[in-house]
Amino acid sequence: MGDYRELWKNLNMDLEKHDQLCAVLPDMYGSVYLTQENRPEGMNYFNFVVSEVHGLRPAELNEHKQKGGKVLGTFCVFVPDEVIFAANAIPVGLCAGSQFWVEDGEKHLPRNMCPLIKAAVGAKVSGTCPYFQSVDMIVGETTCDGKKKAWEILDEYVPVHVMDLPQMKRTKDYNMWMEEIKLFIEKVEELTGNKVTVENLKKGIEIANSKRRALKRLYDFRKMTPSPISGKDALLISQIAFYDDPARFVQKVNELCDELEERAKSLKSEGKKRIMITGTPMALPNWKLHDIIENLPAEVVVEETCTGTRYFENEVSTEGETIEDLIKNLADRYLNINCACFTPNTGRIDDIKRYVEEYKVDGVIYSNLSFCHSYSIEYRNVEKALKEAGIPIMNIETDYSTEDAGQIKTRVEAFLEMI
Amino acid sequence: MGDYRELWKNLNMDLEKHDQLCAVLPDMYGSVYLTQENRPEGMNYFNFVVSEVHGLRPAELNEHKQKGGKVLGTFCVFVPDEVIFAANAIPVGLCAGSQFWVEDGEKHLPRNMCPLIKAAVGAKVSGTCPYFQSVDMIVGETTCDGKKKAWEILDEYVPVHVMDLPQMKRTKDYNMWMEEIKLFIEKVEELTGNKVTVENLKKGIEIANSKRRALKRLYDFRKMTPSPISGKDALLISQIAFYDDPARFVQKVNELCDELEERAKSLKSEGKKRIMITGTPMALPNWKLHDIIENLPAEVVVEETCTGTRYFENEVSTEGETIEDLIKNLADRYLNINCACFTPNTGRIDDIKRYVEEYKVDGVIYSNLSFCHSYSIEYRNVEKALKEAGIPIMNIETDYSTEDAGQIKTRVEAFLEMI
Repeated sequence: MGDYRELWKNLNMDLEKHDQLCAVLPDMYGSVYLTQENRPEGMNYFNFVVSEVHGLRPAELNEHKQKGGKVLGTFCVFVPDEVIFAANAIPVGLCAGSQFWVEDGEKHLPRNMCPLIKAAVGAKVSGTCPYFQSVDMIVGETTCDGKKKAWEILDEYVPVHVMDLPQMKRTKDYNMWMEEIKLFIEKVEELTGNKVTVENLKKGIEIANSKRRALKRLYDFRKMTPSPISGKDALLISQIAFYDDPARFVQKVNELCDELEERAKSLKSEGKKRIMITGTPMALPNWKLHDIIENLPAEVVVEETCTGTRYFENEVSTEGETIEDLIKNLADRYLNINCACFTPNTGRIDDIKRYVEEYKVDGVIYSNLSFCHSYSIEYRNVEKALKEAGIPIMNIETDYSTEDAGQIKTRVEAFLEMI
Repeated sequence: MGDYRELWKNLNMDLEKHDQLCAVLPDMYGSVYLTQENRPEGMNYFNFVVSEVHGLRPAELNEHKQKGGKVLGTFCVFVPDEVIFAANAIPVGLCAGSQFWVEDGEKHLPRNMCPLIKAAVGAKVSGTCPYFQSVDMIVGETTCDGKKKAWEILDEYVPVHVMDLPQMKRTKDYNMWMEEIKLFIEKVEELTGNKVTVENLKKGIEIANSKRRALKRLYDFRKMTPSPISGKDALLISQIAFYDDPARFVQKVNELCDELEERAKSLKSEGKKRIMITGTPMALPNWKLHDIIENLPAEVVVEETCTGTRYFENEVSTEGETIEDLIKNLADRYLNINCACFTPNTGRIDDIKRYVEEYKVDGVIYSNLSFCHSYSIEYRNVEKALKEAGIPIMNIETDYSTEDAGQIKTRVEAFLEMI
């Protein structure tokens, strides 16, 4: 990693504690990722991004800020990045994926909360996440009780703007979400001093769509048997999508895809079971479940999660002549995401069944972060629908600790033998 | 109890299982309530209501239904009973307060969920709650992830109409809540066949306000030192408010209050510590915490909960000439409730501080049902504000089981000694 200590110091980071974090990551990454045989060359870029994860991009954000630009932190696929791009600001996904931050989070939150929220709060209060330290504003949303109330804590450290996501999908809810996007535009204009126009919003939509197209192209390769890319490599790329410079990211994903196109011609199936993961998001560096599964004779071929298909499926239309038109296009695309925060959320079951066909899935693993009520309750209906359709499914509830890894491995093994 | 077996059979209840429930309640009630010395005579009516809790009122609901009337089940103080009264329907709070139902609930819900939601689902699926069996429709809301997703399960058993409560309190949220009330009116009109008019909605408001006034009058007596009524008796009355015939309830509460007025003149303080409970609702027959506290030298003088002040504070204005006017009055009153489901929810802290003054509170006990994220996260801000104001506060997280009763008693004892 380059020398970023001056930058981190200027970001008011806790350097000593941050060193502890930096000391852990390379080993962890090495054992999960670099042990893979016959990896695509194109993954070298993503290896590099991880090796520089707290330096390279934060330095770019710093440069952007030096020129008067703004940086907005987000936590959820419902926040419309298009608006942020339009105002010449940069959106970044915030740190929330490591057990390292959980302990500090538990000083401010109850222990029986989802690890993602505890890690996010812990990352901020401990001053060990350069992204949290760089953002001028956090954009929150009301997708779950835990995050909704955690904004109140984070707001003591950095301004938080909350978007109230409707909990249903009726016509009035689309209208409400359009109003919420309008308020968000006003807020972003106020923060950046830049007006959101039809022209720059169309450009913002195009940037976000180009990321979606690149990820879609990548995921399409995973429909092949065998997939020319491992599940954990694909997961890593999805995770990096939330941080990286959009143009560079799209270019690198496309270069990788060009390689995969060639590579796919010569690969032969080893008869691995094809697994879909569905459930809660996996924030960087949460690779736990993928790593367990792919150390067995199985490959993860698709993630119906917020760090998977929910992030890139469906583009935003650029049709229209007014800001109103474009806001409607945004609302249409975003309320089409089938998150368990909606009631009912039957569209998710349709998505899962469709992906089972498209990705030739042998079995579905429902992955739920501990204490996420919305997804854990929804398991019942998903299980029922999949069993009716004859699709094998198993439920895993876990957090960021490694204590249950052996037990999960045993259960996944049994599941693979069964399907 | 009278003989209601024929009624229960017609309600498709599981008679055998229900007998088990009925066998437990009298002993429990006896030990918590009938052991109190020098109780007001006026409590006899409420003793009677409990002794007939699954018979008398369900028989009245049955009679109402025989005449073509409808019954709507509710779970939350945000559902506007006024609309239900206006359409000549009856609102009833649904069973959710007993450990008896938790096991059946856990067959459909994850175990790490709030006991209130598990008990509610368990009460329905086990066919042991005559109220659940009587309702033509359940009115749900989006106040927490757990309930929001549980409606999808209950909807398989009885139609559920969900009201999407905004999660913030901006002008647009008031407008949204008004729209939601309008949709609710349409739904109730459709179900009952009765039009909601300015005239009958004003009458509905008056019925709901009369309950609020009676409860307010009751609670005002608790501001006295000593309170002429125990905390657990007051809690019981609040719980019964959700079930009972409104006119009879108001009359009986007022008769009790007349007695308390006399009684207060001769009571002398025994120096008991005056406790406020703030937090999650206590559904019938959840008397656990009150019982523990009042078996110590302490009295609960106010509950800042949904089975306390949040239920009756602030009347709905009957001013206005149009349905729109009245809907606005409803929205104004209901969005004035300071539930932890809102972000931020600083009004709740103001309420707690005000009640500390008005009820001369010595210490605040924050009571949280296990796994209720909204209230458990909000503890941090409430604690901080109260400590700054020099008000003692302690946090208790518990469920419906009795296993932790000894431990809670020890902790409350220590708290009482400290304040």
